[in-house]
Amino acid sequence: MYLPMKKIIITIIICFTANALQSQQKEHTKCPYIKTTDGYLMVLREGDNVIASIENLIKEKQIPSGNFTGIGFAGEVTFGFFDFNTKKFNPKTFYKVEMGNLTGSIAWAEGKPSLHIHGIATDDQFNAYGGHILSLKVGTGSMEIYITTNSEKLQRKIEMPLNANVLQLPCREQ
Amino acid sequence: MYLPMKKIIITIIICFTANALQSQQKEHTKCPYIKTTDGYLMVLREGDNVIASIENLIKEKQIPSGNFTGIGFAGEVTFGFFDFNTKKFNPKTFYKVEMGNLTGSIAWAEGKPSLHIHGIATDDQFNAYGGHILSLKVGTGSMEIYITTNSEKLQRKIEMPLNANVLQLPCREQ
Amino acid sequence: MYLPMKKIIITIIICFTANALQSQQKEHTKCPYIKTTDGYLMVLREGDNVIASIENLIKEKQIPSGNFTGIGFAGEVTFGFFDFNTKKFNPKTFYKVEMGNLTGSIAWAEGKPSLHIHGIATDDQFNAYGGHILSLKVGTGSMEIYITTNSEKLQRKIEMPLNANVLQLPCREQ
Repeated sequence: MYLPMKKIIITIIICFTANALQSQQKEHTKCPYIKTTDGYLMVLREGDNVIASIENLIKEKQIPSGNFTGIGFAGEVTFGFFDFNTKKFNPKTFYKVEMGNLTGSIAWAEGKPSLHIHGIATDDQFNAYGGHILSLKVGTGSMEIYITTNSEKLQRKIEMPLNANVLQLPCREQ
Repeated sequence: MYLPMKKIIITIIICFTANALQSQQKEHTKCPYIKTTDGYLMVLREGDNVIASIENLIKEKQIPSGNFTGIGFAGEVTFGFFDFNTKKFNPKTFYKVEMGNLTGSIAWAEGKPSLHIHGIATDDQFNAYGGHILSLKVGTGSMEIYITTNSEKLQRKIEMPLNANVLQLPCREQ
Repeated sequence: MYLPMKKIIITIIICFTANALQSQQKEHTKCPYIKTTDGYLMVLREGDNVIASIENLIKEKQIPSGNFTGIGFAGEVTFGFFDFNTKKFNPKTFYKVEMGNLTGSIAWAEGKPSLHIHGIATDDQFNAYGGHILSLKVGTGSMEIYITTNSEKLQRKIEMPLNANVLQLPCREQ
């Protein structure tokens, strides 16, 4: 016998722990959201892409429109401030920040989900930064998103001359 | 024939574009909101007064009470910090800022809609400012407001000695 | 007769006012919340502990889960930034600040209500600070909390190796 008993036990423990962590990880990946009374609750984990995750939910459940708030810890978040001369977003990325608040809306554009998300990030000195979110990845911990769904399908459309992507409301007798 | 063909065509294009923009503008003015599953969705445009627009909706639909969140781009937003000695708000105005988040409540006072709105504005350097909103005008782009309505009519009342305008809850068996 | 008429009248007025204020105070204490269409509306007053007040509501009404937003004036708010090396929150307290936004979720852990709240505070210069809230006491004025309830009971669980308290979603066919 080449391995002493202690080493065997440690190996077994490591294998079990790795399996448990892996199956826990799989469960999170399989179940990033549940149905709630008014919409959906999403809980994302480290490394998850927040925008892609919400877009996947919209496609899977064919959510016609809605809005959401959220909180959590961001590994990295990129905000963009729109320059109306260049018609482009000037971006800035912040790392390892709390998301003090996320607020956004769900619509569709050209057959695909179209999100509009703003947020406020806070750093380890509790200073706040924020604006229009271009990308957001979950950091250590989690990100909770509270979604309220609406039964009417809404579209977003680029409006000129601003080049702004604006949520369209169907005009009708109110 | 005094006008060369090119000028005529340009004139026609300008007229059509102006008409199209005008009718689009009219449509926005006519339809600043739609009913949703839980309340209303409002989308405002450049120059719109956010507080007056929400108050108009409350009056038109006789919304008994409610709360809302929102995001968008502000042409100008004035925050006020209440000075309990002078009983007045010290104001400060910020121009061309994203509204990272708007949060507020809907009630009534002396027969008129009464709003309470806080917000966080973020500038082109992504720095955040905020507080109690005294006035808010939409900038280039739009402002989205997500309203949840409640069926019970609620009142706001000035409470002494603070001179604070406080949302009143009817006392009863819960 | 030892007291002149004026003093008697003043004494009577003071007594009445004190009684009125006291009964108003009692009413607030008795009725910190009402049922709304989608959940609860809570209005807290100076000195109220926000976390304890929401936890009391959760216990009294046995709210299975939910989320909320809110605004108001804080006498003091303590934020904590999680240090993943020490597994502890580094805290910082801010005094006499507006809460520009509160966002959070309701769940249970080991038979007790478990809250997760983030917030953005703004000072008298309108500068913004924020993050994960460890404690929050209402200042002069009030604090309004808008709660959306969900019918499914949810649990929060400490997850290793992060020591993060994460909202658990039951895995099932969606």
